[in-house]
Amino acid sequence: MSEPSSSEPVPLGRVVALLDELYPQGSAAEWDRVGLVTGDLEQPVRRVLFALDPTLAVIEEAREWGADLLVTHHPLLLRGVHSVATTSAKGASVTSLVVSDIALYVAHTNADVADPGVSTVLADALGLTSQRPLTTIGPYAAGRVGRLAAPMSLVEFADAVAAALPPTAGGIRVSGDPVGSVRTVAVMGGSGDDQFDAVRASGADVYVTADLRHHPVLEAREEARGGTPYLVDAGHWATESLWLASAEERLLASLEEDRAAPTSVESRISSIRTEPWTFVVGANAAATAAAPSGGVS
Amino acid sequence: MSEPSSSEPVPLGRVVALLDELYPQGSAAEWDRVGLVTGDLEQPVRRVLFALDPTLAVIEEAREWGADLLVTHHPLLLRGVHSVATTSAKGASVTSLVVSDIALYVAHTNADVADPGVSTVLADALGLTSQRPLTTIGPYAAGRVGRLAAPMSLVEFADAVAAALPPTAGGIRVSGDPVGSVRTVAVMGGSGDDQFDAVRASGADVYVTADLRHHPVLEAREEARGGTPYLVDAGHWATESLWLASAEERLLASLEEDRAAPTSVESRISSIRTEPWTFVVGANAAATAAAPSGGVS
Amino acid sequence: MSEPSSSEPVPLGRVVALLDELYPQGSAAEWDRVGLVTGDLEQPVRRVLFALDPTLAVIEEAREWGADLLVTHHPLLLRGVHSVATTSAKGASVTSLVVSDIALYVAHTNADVADPGVSTVLADALGLTSQRPLTTIGPYAAGRVGRLAAPMSLVEFADAVAAALPPTAGGIRVSGDPVGSVRTVAVMGGSGDDQFDAVRASGADVYVTADLRHHPVLEAREEARGGTPYLVDAGHWATESLWLASAEERLLASLEEDRAAPTSVESRISSIRTEPWTFVVGANAAATAAAPSGGVS
Amino acid sequence: MSEPSSSEPVPLGRVVALLDELYPQGSAAEWDRVGLVTGDLEQPVRRVLFALDPTLAVIEEAREWGADLLVTHHPLLLRGVHSVATTSAKGASVTSLVVSDIALYVAHTNADVADPGVSTVLADALGLTSQRPLTTIGPYAAGRVGRLAAPMSLVEFADAVAAALPPTAGGIRVSGDPVGSVRTVAVMGGSGDDQFDAVRASGADVYVTADLRHHPVLEAREEARGGTPYLVDAGHWATESLWLASAEERLLASLEEDRAAPTSVESRISSIRTEPWTFVVGANAAATAAAPSGGVS
Amino acid sequence: MSEPSSSEPVPLGRVVALLDELYPQGSAAEWDRVGLVTGDLEQPVRRVLFALDPTLAVIEEAREWGADLLVTHHPLLLRGVHSVATTSAKGASVTSLVVSDIALYVAHTNADVADPGVSTVLADALGLTSQRPLTTIGPYAAGRVGRLAAPMSLVEFADAVAAALPPTAGGIRVSGDPVGSVRTVAVMGGSGDDQFDAVRASGADVYVTADLRHHPVLEAREEARGGTPYLVDAGHWATESLWLASAEERLLASLEEDRAAPTSVESRISSIRTEPWTFVVGANAAATAAAPSGGVS
Amino acid sequence: MSEPSSSEPVPLGRVVALLDELYPQGSAAEWDRVGLVTGDLEQPVRRVLFALDPTLAVIEEAREWGADLLVTHHPLLLRGVHSVATTSAKGASVTSLVVSDIALYVAHTNADVADPGVSTVLADALGLTSQRPLTTIGPYAAGRVGRLAAPMSLVEFADAVAAALPPTAGGIRVSGDPVGSVRTVAVMGGSGDDQFDAVRASGADVYVTADLRHHPVLEAREEARGGTPYLVDAGHWATESLWLASAEERLLASLEEDRAAPTSVESRISSIRTEPWTFVVGANAAATAAAPSGGVS
Repeated sequence: MSEPSSSEPVPLGRVVALLDELYPQGSAAEWDRVGLVTGDLEQPVRRVLFALDPTLAVIEEAREWGADLLVTHHPLLLRGVHSVATTSAKGASVTSLVVSDIALYVAHTNADVADPGVSTVLADALGLTSQRPLTTIGPYAAGRVGRLAAPMSLVEFADAVAAALPPTAGGIRVSGDPVGSVRTVAVMGGSGDDQFDAVRASGADVYVTADLRHHPVLEAREEARGGTPYLVDAGHWATESLWLASAEERLLASLEEDRAAPTSVESRISSIRTEPWTFVVGANAAATAAAPSGGVS
Repeated sequence: MSEPSSSEPVPLGRVVALLDELYPQGSAAEWDRVGLVTGDLEQPVRRVLFALDPTLAVIEEAREWGADLLVTHHPLLLRGVHSVATTSAKGASVTSLVVSDIALYVAHTNADVADPGVSTVLADALGLTSQRPLTTIGPYAAGRVGRLAAPMSLVEFADAVAAALPPTAGGIRVSGDPVGSVRTVAVMGGSGDDQFDAVRASGADVYVTADLRHHPVLEAREEARGGTPYLVDAGHWATESLWLASAEERLLASLEEDRAAPTSVESRISSIRTEPWTFVVGANAAATAAAPSGGVS
Repeated sequence: MSEPSSSEPVPLGRVVALLDELYPQGSAAEWDRVGLVTGDLEQPVRRVLFALDPTLAVIEEAREWGADLLVTHHPLLLRGVHSVATTSAKGASVTSLVVSDIALYVAHTNADVADPGVSTVLADALGLTSQRPLTTIGPYAAGRVGRLAAPMSLVEFADAVAAALPPTAGGIRVSGDPVGSVRTVAVMGGSGDDQFDAVRASGADVYVTADLRHHPVLEAREEARGGTPYLVDAGHWATESLWLASAEERLLASLEEDRAAPTSVESRISSIRTEPWTFVVGANAAATAAAPSGGVS
Repeated sequence: MSEPSSSEPVPLGRVVALLDELYPQGSAAEWDRVGLVTGDLEQPVRRVLFALDPTLAVIEEAREWGADLLVTHHPLLLRGVHSVATTSAKGASVTSLVVSDIALYVAHTNADVADPGVSTVLADALGLTSQRPLTTIGPYAAGRVGRLAAPMSLVEFADAVAAALPPTAGGIRVSGDPVGSVRTVAVMGGSGDDQFDAVRASGADVYVTADLRHHPVLEAREEARGGTPYLVDAGHWATESLWLASAEERLLASLEEDRAAPTSVESRISSIRTEPWTFVVGANAAATAAAPSGGVS
Repeated sequence: MSEPSSSEPVPLGRVVALLDELYPQGSAAEWDRVGLVTGDLEQPVRRVLFALDPTLAVIEEAREWGADLLVTHHPLLLRGVHSVATTSAKGASVTSLVVSDIALYVAHTNADVADPGVSTVLADALGLTSQRPLTTIGPYAAGRVGRLAAPMSLVEFADAVAAALPPTAGGIRVSGDPVGSVRTVAVMGGSGDDQFDAVRASGADVYVTADLRHHPVLEAREEARGGTPYLVDAGHWATESLWLASAEERLLASLEEDRAAPTSVESRISSIRTEPWTFVVGANAAATAAAPSGGVS
Repeated sequence: MSEPSSSEPVPLGRVVALLDELYPQGSAAEWDRVGLVTGDLEQPVRRVLFALDPTLAVIEEAREWGADLLVTHHPLLLRGVHSVATTSAKGASVTSLVVSDIALYVAHTNADVADPGVSTVLADALGLTSQRPLTTIGPYAAGRVGRLAAPMSLVEFADAVAAALPPTAGGIRVSGDPVGSVRTVAVMGGSGDDQFDAVRASGADVYVTADLRHHPVLEAREEARGGTPYLVDAGHWATESLWLASAEERLLASLEEDRAAPTSVESRISSIRTEPWTFVVGANAAATAAAPSGGVS
C-alpha cells in the first residue's frame, strides 16, 4: 500500500495511458478483452484497488474504500453483453461500478506475456533460476521454465510451492511419485492444460499450473508413462494473485516517474480471495503409493 | 466379483450384444465414440475386467489377471488415431490390448443417460429420494435431482458425500456457506460445468459434479450472489466409478438370463484408481468464513 | 400522453412483464437482442418515455423529464459490448442511463411481428384494407399487403404516404412511372430490401419500405422490367415511428387492466426525430420521365 | 465522344488487353467479378458505350447505337448464374447482349482503386487539394481525403457537391449542423458505410459517399457526438458516374498510342441515368435545427 | 424418333411445364441446378434433341439439325458462371446456344430419382426383377436392387451388361472372382462410389455403377474380404444414356395427351457419344486369378 | 531383392530415421497421415516388404515371408479410427499387423514430392527429358513435364506407356485424336484430376495420370476444344508402383552408408497387384474416330 504524495488527483486517462505502457493492449490474445471497461477518461483517480477478479464482493470493497479505479487481471465482460440490467450478475457488477463512479481496467493475457508478468512473477516466487520462456503464443513468450537451486523430492517441492503462494482453501493437488526428484520446473499461471506438449519438449521435471481436469491430466500422465513431467495444480487464483503486487508497484513507479507531472495515488491490493472454494473434505483419503504408470492401486 | 458357472466360454459377439442392450450405442452423444475398440467377435470371453479408464496400468492388470474383455466408461480413442505405433501412449495401449488378445468395450455417454446409469447410481449413493432428471441431452434424460431425507448443513453434506464415494487423494472441494442448509441436491457424474442453468432452474440447494474450473465456478457463484446453489466438486473418478458395480451386476445378470444359452463369466472391478492426483498439500489453509457474495475475505 | 392515476409507483418488474406479454421476447429473431438493457426490476416506474432509437439526445431528454423507463424499438447493444467506458458512444449511453437510474427496454423484431405491430400500424396509417401478411419470418407473419380504397397514380400515392407519415428531412424516394396506377400495396417498416421475392409473389403494385440501396433496388427494378411493383423508400424512422403511439397506448391499457393492481404511469413519446438526415439538396434535379426499363434517360 | 480515325476495326482481344492495363484485374477485390462477361476476343470493335450499370435499357441503347462493346462499372453477374434463360432479368440481359453481338467488359473494384479511379475522379470534381488515400483495401489505396480551398459551411458544401455532380432525382442527403464549418473532406464513390473508422482517423470534417442506411449513419453520428465528421450521401450513381469520362478518355488514348497499331474507336457515354429513383416528395419537410447530439428535436 | 403431327409449333413454356411434370425440379438435390438454362418461354419448339451432355459437339449437332430445344441429363452450369465470354468452353457453349436460338433444359438428379428414371431404366435393361430402391436421398428413392432370372458367373454377368448397354471405347471394368456366382444386383447410374454402405446392406452380389477410383474401390473390396459384393464400373455415359429414350418417349406422350392442345414435335437422340474416352490399350494384360482378398497375385 | 549383410538386426527406430531423411514427413500435405502406423521403435528389423497398399493380402504376404516392416505408399489410417476391432477391414488390418509384430511405415504425399519420387520415377520410365515440375503444392514441386525424344502419335504414345508400366487388368484409357502428334508430356502419378489448369499452362500435348472421372475429363476435353492436351488414364496402381523399386534401392543404400553402423536388411517388393480391377470386357467396342470437339460420333 502506498500513501498519496500529491494533492492534485490524476485524471483516469493518464493512468490508463501508463497501464497501457506496462501491459500493451496489442499483446493480448485476439479473443481477449482488455483495457477500460467502465469509467470516463476525465474522472479523477485518487485510490486504486488491485484484485484478480471483479466480483460483486470486490466491487463492494472498492466502493466502501472509496476507490476510483479497480484494476483486475480477469475480464468482467470477456463475452460481449447485450444488457447490463441487474437481473444478471454481470449486469449488476457493471451497474454497481457505474453508479459508484468506479472505473474498471483489465490486464489479462497482456499481463500473462509481460515481463515482469504473471508467469515470471510466479517463477520468481518459486526461486527458479536460468529462466527461459516455456512457449510462445503468437509473437509473445508465455510461461517460464527454470531450475531449482538443488534437486528435491516432489513432495518437498509441493510444500515449497505451498509456502510460496498465498494460502487457499483448495490447496495444491499433485500427480506423480512423491519421492521422485525434481529440479527443472515449468510454470504457467492460471489455466495451462493446453501446454503439455511444450512442457514435454522443455524437459521439465514438474509443471505448475492450475484448472487441470481429469482427461487432459490423465492423458499427460499416460504420455509420461508414470515418470516426469509431474503435475502440480496450485490453483488459478493462487498462481496468478502474486502478480497483483508487481502491477501495483509498477503503476506507482510509473506515476512517480511521469514526465508530464509526477504524481501518486493511494493504492492497495484487495483483501478478498476470489478463489471460489470455501473448504475441502477427504483430501489424501486414498493411499499415495505411485502406480507403475497411469494409476494408483 | 462372480464365479464362472459354465465351462463353455461365451463368444465376444454375444457379450457385446448384451452390453449394447444395456447401454444402446444410439443413445451416445454424436461426438462420442463407444462400443468395441479392440477384439474379434469370435474370440472367447472368460474373464471381464471393469474400470473407469483404459490406462496402461489397467491394461497391465487385465493382462496379468488373464482378462479377455475390458469394459471401461471412458473411450480410449475419443479422437481418431492415424497410428497405433507404441511411440504414443494411445498407440502403446492399443498395441498392448491387441497383443494380449484383450477386447476393449466402451460405454460412455450412453452409460451416462442409462437408467440405472452413471448419475442415477451416484444419486442413489447419496440417498436422494423423489428423483427426477436434471436436464435432457438430445432426447435423453441426464443428471439427477433429488431430496435428502432431512436438511443438513453444507459441511455435513460434504462429509456425507465423502462417506458415500470411494476415498481419493484429491478429496472434495466445496463452495458455499458451510452452515448453509441443503436439502434438494442436483448431481451429474463427471464434468458438469455446462449445466449451471439447469441446476438453477431445478431449484437445487447444492450441485455435485466434477472438473470445475475457476471461471465457470466463479461465474456460477456470482450468479448465486453468495447463496444457493452451492457447488461440490467431488472428483471425476469418484463420481463415476460407483457405476462400475452396476454395470458388472447388470452384465452378469444378462448373461445368466440369456435365452440363447445362459452362461457366466468371471468378473471383477479394477483395483486401480485412475484419478490422476497422488496427494494434496495445503488444503483448508485459508479461513473459511463465507463472504457476502463472490469471495472469502 | 397520459396522466398518472395512482400515487403508488409500479415496480419495473411489473412493467417489464406487461411489455413481454404485448411483445413476447420469444418472437424476436434469433439474432436480435430485446428486453431489458439497463435497470433493476425493483426500481419504481413513474414516467415512461417512448422513442425509436436510444440516442444520447433521447437519453438526455429522458433524464431532463425525469423518466424512469425508456422504451425503444431499436436495440442499444445489438452487438455485444465488452466495455461501457464513455470513450465509445455506446458506453456513454449505457453510463448515462445507469447513472440517471433510467431503465431501457427494447421491443424490436418482436414488435415487427406483433399485431398490432410496426407493419400493421404502418398499413393502417396508409388506409389499406383487406390486409394480409406479406411474408413469414420463422413462424411469424411479417409485413403487410392490402388495398387502397381506389386506384391512384404513383405520384398521388407518394403524396398520400408523405401525408400519412411524420415529416422528415430525408423525404420519400420513389422508383417507377409517376402516372402508373397503384392499388395493391405491400409495406414493411424499416429495412425491407430482402423481401423483393415476397413482394413480387404478393402481386403488389408498390412496395413501401426503407433503407433501399442502389444495387438491390436496381435489380428489383430490372426484374420488374420497368413495371410494377414500384418502390417507395419512405425512411426508416418515418415508417417505424408511428408504432410508438400504439405501444404507448397498449402499455397504458395493460397497466390499467392489470388484475394484480390497476395502476398507471405518466408517459410520452419523444419529441426527437432520430432520422439522421438534417437536410436534402438537389432532389428532383433530373427529369422524371420513366425509361422503358431500368433507367431514366 | 470521339470520331473513328481508322477504317480497320480493332479486335476485342486488343481492347480488353488495353483495359486490363488501365484497370488490372488482379487489383479487384477477391469477391468481385471483373473483366469480359460476354463476347469473343476476335470480334471487331468499332463502337464502345460506357455506362455505370448494364441494365436492359442500357443494353437496348447499345444495340440501337450499334455498339460492339459495353464497358460498365458494375458487374452483371456478381453472383454466379446457373441459367441465362430470359425468365430472369439477368438472363434476359445476357441473352440480349449475346444475340446482339455486344461484348460486355466490367471494371469495378479495380476501377475503385485505380489512379485515376472512381474516388480520385470524385475528389478532383470536388476540387480537393493535398489529396491522400482514405484507407487501404488489401494492398491498394481506396477513397481519398483532401482539402477545400477555403472553409465553408456544411450547407454551402452540400450545394457545391450538387453543382459538381450530375443532377439526379434522389438528390443529396446531409447529416450535420448546416452552419458547421468544413474544410477537410473524405470521399468514397459508391457504398462507403464500412469506412467510418477510417474517416474518423483521417480527421475529415465531412464524408461524401452513398447508400447510407439508418443504423450505420446513426451510429456514426452518435460516435461524432453531434460534431464532425458530418455525412453526405450524394447517391451511388452520381458519385461514381463521373468516372465514366475518365475511363473513356484513357481507353481512347491507349488505343491511339498502341504501339502495335494505333487505332481508334467511336465511343460515347450512355445517356441513361441508372440511379433507380424517379422522384422525391416531402424532402426538408422537417425543421433542420441541429440537436445537441444524435437527433433533431 | 418421331414425326411431327401438328403444323402449329408449341411454345417452349408449354414443353418446359410438361418436362417439369415428368421430372419435378423440387426433387433435384439441393446442390443441383436443373431446369431451363437458355431460351425464352415464348419461342416456338419444333425439334427437340436429347443428349447426356451439352458439349460443343452436341450443340453443333443441334444447330445443324435445326433443334429449338436441347434436353440433357448433365447440367451445363452446375457451378455458377460470372462470364459467358467465349474464352471459356462453358461461355462458348452458352454463346452458341443463345446465338442459335436453342433452348437448353436439364433434368439431372430429378431424373435420377424419377420412376421411370436413370436407375430404373438401367435396372430394366439388365433384366432385373423384384426391384426395390437401393437407398434414399432425402425423401426420394435412389438406385435399384433386383434379381437376375438365374444365377450366373461374374464374367457372364459382365458380358450381359456389355450386351445391354451401348458400346463404348472405355469398356466395362470388373472387380471380383470371375467365376463367383451373382444373382442379386444393385445398380446406380453414373457416379455411385458413395453408396457402398447401402450396397452391403442390400445383400447384393454385385454393384453396377461408374466413375470408380482406386481408393474407394479398394476399400470396398477390402471390406468385402475378397467376396461379394463384386463391383462393375460400366461407364458414366453408358449407364445413364439409356435413359434418353425413356425421356424422349415420355415427353412425346405428354405432348400428345396435353389437354390444352394435343401437339407433337420432331425429336431424336443425339448420335454423339459423350463418353470422353477414345480408345483403350493394354486391358487384361495382367492375369486375372483372384487373390484371397484385396489383391491379385 | 537384396541379401542381408549383417547378422545384427537394425532397430526399427534406425530404419524409420533413415526413411524420414529420404521422405521428410514435414513435406507431406497437411491432410495426409504418414510415418509409422504400427510397431515399436526398439523392435528389430530383418526383412522389409514394399507395397503400394497395405491390404489384408499384402499383410498376409508380409506375415508369411516373415517381414518385420512393411513400407507402403498409401496410408492405412488416412481417416482417424476410433476402433481397431476386427469388425472393420481397417481394424482387421491393424490387428493383423500388431499380432504379427509387423511395423507399417507410410510415405505418401511426401514421396510424391520427393526427388526421386513418384512422379519423377514415372517421368523417367516414360523417357522424358528436359524435365521440370508441373506445379507446386505448397512449397514443393509436384508432377513432372518433359519431352519425348521424338514426336509420336497419341496411339503410339499410349502403347509406349503400356510398355513402360507393369501390366494391369484395367489397361490404359486415352482421350484424344489417335493420330494427333504428342511430344511434350505432363505426368502426375495417382489421382491428378485437380491439375488440369497447370497442365494447360505447361503447354503439354498429353497428360498421364489416373482416376479420371466423367465430368472433370469431359470439361478438360471441352476446354481443349478437341485438341491438346490429350489425356491418358494409366491406372492409379500402375503409375505409382514403379516408385517402389526406387524406395527400396534408396533405403538399402542408406542402411549400407549409415555412419553409425552400416548394416543391411533383406527386402523385396510385394508380388501382389493392388489395382482393384480383375478384368475388362467390351473395351474399344465403339468406333474411335475423333469428333471435332467434345465427343465421338
